[in-house]
Amino acid sequence: MSLPQRFHWEKLADFCESVFRKAGVPTETAQIVAQSLVEADLRGVDSHGVVRTDIYLRRLEAGRIQPLAEPSVISEGPGFTLLDGNNNFGAYVGMKALRTALDRAKAGGIGIVGVKGSNHFGTGAFYALQAIREDMILMVMSNASQTMPPTGGIRPFIGTNPLCVGVPAGAEQPFVLDMATSVVARGKIIVAAQKGEPIPLGWAIDKDGNPTTDAQAALEGSVLPVGGAKGYAISMVIDILSGVLTGAGYGQYVNNMYENWNEDQNVGHFFMAIDIQRFIPLPFFKGRMDDYIRSLKAEPKAPGVPEILIPGELEHRQSERRKQYGIELPLKVAEELHGIGLRYGVSLLDAAMPD
Amino acid sequence: MSLPQRFHWEKLADFCESVFRKAGVPTETAQIVAQSLVEADLRGVDSHGVVRTDIYLRRLEAGRIQPLAEPSVISEGPGFTLLDGNNNFGAYVGMKALRTALDRAKAGGIGIVGVKGSNHFGTGAFYALQAIREDMILMVMSNASQTMPPTGGIRPFIGTNPLCVGVPAGAEQPFVLDMATSVVARGKIIVAAQKGEPIPLGWAIDKDGNPTTDAQAALEGSVLPVGGAKGYAISMVIDILSGVLTGAGYGQYVNNMYENWNEDQNVGHFFMAIDIQRFIPLPFFKGRMDDYIRSLKAEPKAPGVPEILIPGELEHRQSERRKQYGIELPLKVAEELHGIGLRYGVSLLDAAMPD
Ligand SMILES: NC(=O)c1ccc[n+]([C@@H]2O[C@H](COP(=O)([O-])OP(=O)(O)OC[C@H]3O[C@@H](n4cnc5c(N)ncnc54)[C@H](O)[C@@H]3O)[C@@H](O)[C@H]2O)c1
Ligand SMILES: NC(=O)c1ccc[n+]([C@@H]2O[C@H](COP(=O)([O-])OP(=O)(O)OC[C@H]3O[C@@H](n4cnc5c(N)ncnc54)[C@H](O)[C@@H]3O)[C@@H](O)[C@H]2O)c1
Repeated sequence: MSLPQRFHWEKLADFCESVFRKAGVPTETAQIVAQSLVEADLRGVDSHGVVRTDIYLRRLEAGRIQPLAEPSVISEGPGFTLLDGNNNFGAYVGMKALRTALDRAKAGGIGIVGVKGSNHFGTGAFYALQAIREDMILMVMSNASQTMPPTGGIRPFIGTNPLCVGVPAGAEQPFVLDMATSVVARGKIIVAAQKGEPIPLGWAIDKDGNPTTDAQAALEGSVLPVGGAKGYAISMVIDILSGVLTGAGYGQYVNNMYENWNEDQNVGHFFMAIDIQRFIPLPFFKGRMDDYIRSLKAEPKAPGVPEILIPGELEHRQSERRKQYGIELPLKVAEELHGIGLRYGVSLLDAAMPD
Repeated sequence: MSLPQRFHWEKLADFCESVFRKAGVPTETAQIVAQSLVEADLRGVDSHGVVRTDIYLRRLEAGRIQPLAEPSVISEGPGFTLLDGNNNFGAYVGMKALRTALDRAKAGGIGIVGVKGSNHFGTGAFYALQAIREDMILMVMSNASQTMPPTGGIRPFIGTNPLCVGVPAGAEQPFVLDMATSVVARGKIIVAAQKGEPIPLGWAIDKDGNPTTDAQAALEGSVLPVGGAKGYAISMVIDILSGVLTGAGYGQYVNNMYENWNEDQNVGHFFMAIDIQRFIPLPFFKGRMDDYIRSLKAEPKAPGVPEILIPGELEHRQSERRKQYGIELPLKVAEELHGIGLRYGVSLLDAAMPD
């Protein structure tokens, strides 16, 4: 039997949700985790898509994720909350943190939520898009396990700690910056390694500190921070706000989900929501965003550049396309999911897109 | 007479303050502006030091800065304030915004202040260092007039919008990230042009979009964002939070202080202060910061790298050094200040450091 490789996004989410439910995860949590993975695939961030189902499940099965634990409040004030995720799934904890930040912002204009005791929370855009639907600006950060050296160092010490900022516009698509603080997300190197493809020079160094184009050697070495010391410094900021300030792990204390099976990850996050209309009237703001975006897009282009892009634009288009034509998975990933489905009695084939 | 070029930092600040006072600026404001300039020189950020006295004065004299205007509140809530700087000096408006953010954070844990109607506010570190003295975390951003193209563009559209984050530590020096979102601050290219020195390839493009090492051609062209599209995107975030959200200028509406004499600059800023002890106990936090900093500095180094650095470390050392040995100014800058002093009846020579 040849396995299908193109899947319907909603059915793929159903598949993942069913698997998580059968593995003992409550429906709401299973739904959120599944949505977060499929949303990443839709947007073309394949490295953070359903390819992660396997590792999430394995940590769950190993007792390293607590699917029944509710996040609890450690400290709070009018504009902020510090949460302990109590080691539930990162996406579930992240959604609770987001909700808390949005509610605080609705009440007082600003909502800041720090989180400790969480796990890998997927892509930042997953949260930013929800905030945008509620006409809020969201800044969200997370720390991650060690993958990048400090500037001048040779081995991984900080994570590729992602930074995401979402901002609603009016008639234009929203602004969604969602980036790793590395030259590229480590997940892209994982994908290259899985495909057996080389990576461009400048993305990473091998374990001895030498530049490399070998994806596997890069995974055993370190991903480099974007823009040299500036990327290193921004990654530290994210570690400080998400980790040092919250009581979560930071630096060497954020445990690697693939390698450390004796300890919880203790990932930390930092959310900041801003209720725009408390600052200036919403239609005025949206008009200004539209004008800003349109002016940028109308700028003269360098030879060979087809278009000036706004952060999030490519991902939005990819999402529209994949909603229509399906999500294409590498055979290896389809096989892995198929195997997971067999194990839990859920058929991946039901999610396949007719040719 | 040969003009001295090495100056005592406090006396140099007195000189600048006196000049501003004689030009009609109230004492407190003159003091703040002078301190902000000299603090930049102390830290080795010469591009934002007393070299800016001339342009600040010229805008004041042209009526494009209102030294008597008090910042006013546009909107507010428990965790935030939106201020109109009413076109006073950027450093004065910035200090008011900082004070408001710190007071809000002391009251409720978090303080966010947006600012419109301001001017060039100098370096972010000037504000971060004050916050650190009060055991607060500060994130501060400002937009700036057009100097960088969007990724794929060829002419300046966004500013080198600075991002600064200050975090107190315990026994270690505080963390102070203070960066332009360009590969380097445009001020460094101004300094190179003044010295008649070339700049490295990759810093800037000329006005036709070609890479250049000619500092003057770079000033007529565009500085490039750090890390390609990621730096462009972060610069947009700063423009959105500082400008679009506050009602200040953004993109093409932030007026160039050197070129536009018919309009106010309408720069915008964004301040976020966090009262650490509302999250976790302060000694616990400081211990974690010390551990984080020490662990990073103890990392193995690449061949030829003398030391792993923490953001702000070099600037702190430079500051200690210059407090002792004096601030050395290029002859051109010393001459300019001398001329200003003559015009206002204040002697620059009084600030000279004995050899
Ligand atoms: N949870 C974690 O631990 C973790 C860690 C690292 C990364 N991530 C996720 O990985 C993904 C980021 O990966 P990445 O940094 O490789 O993404 P990327 O480099 O593909 O894109 C980064 C951002 O830049 C924008 N962009 C790209 N080219 C542009 C252009 N020419 N003009 C304007 N904007 C442009 C994109 O829209 C995007 O917002 C994110 O979804 C992030 O949340 C997660
Ligand atoms: N007001 C404005 O409109 C405006 C605009 C742009 C820039 N600025 C100011 O200009 C200055 C920034 O200039 P820049 O970007 O050229 O500074 P920079 O590149 O010299 O330094 C940027 C940051 O990186 C840190 N750093 C540098 N090398 C490091 C290393 N090896 N390891 C760890 N950290 C390291 C520094 O401590 C600093 O915090 C700032 O003070 C900024 O506020 C102001």
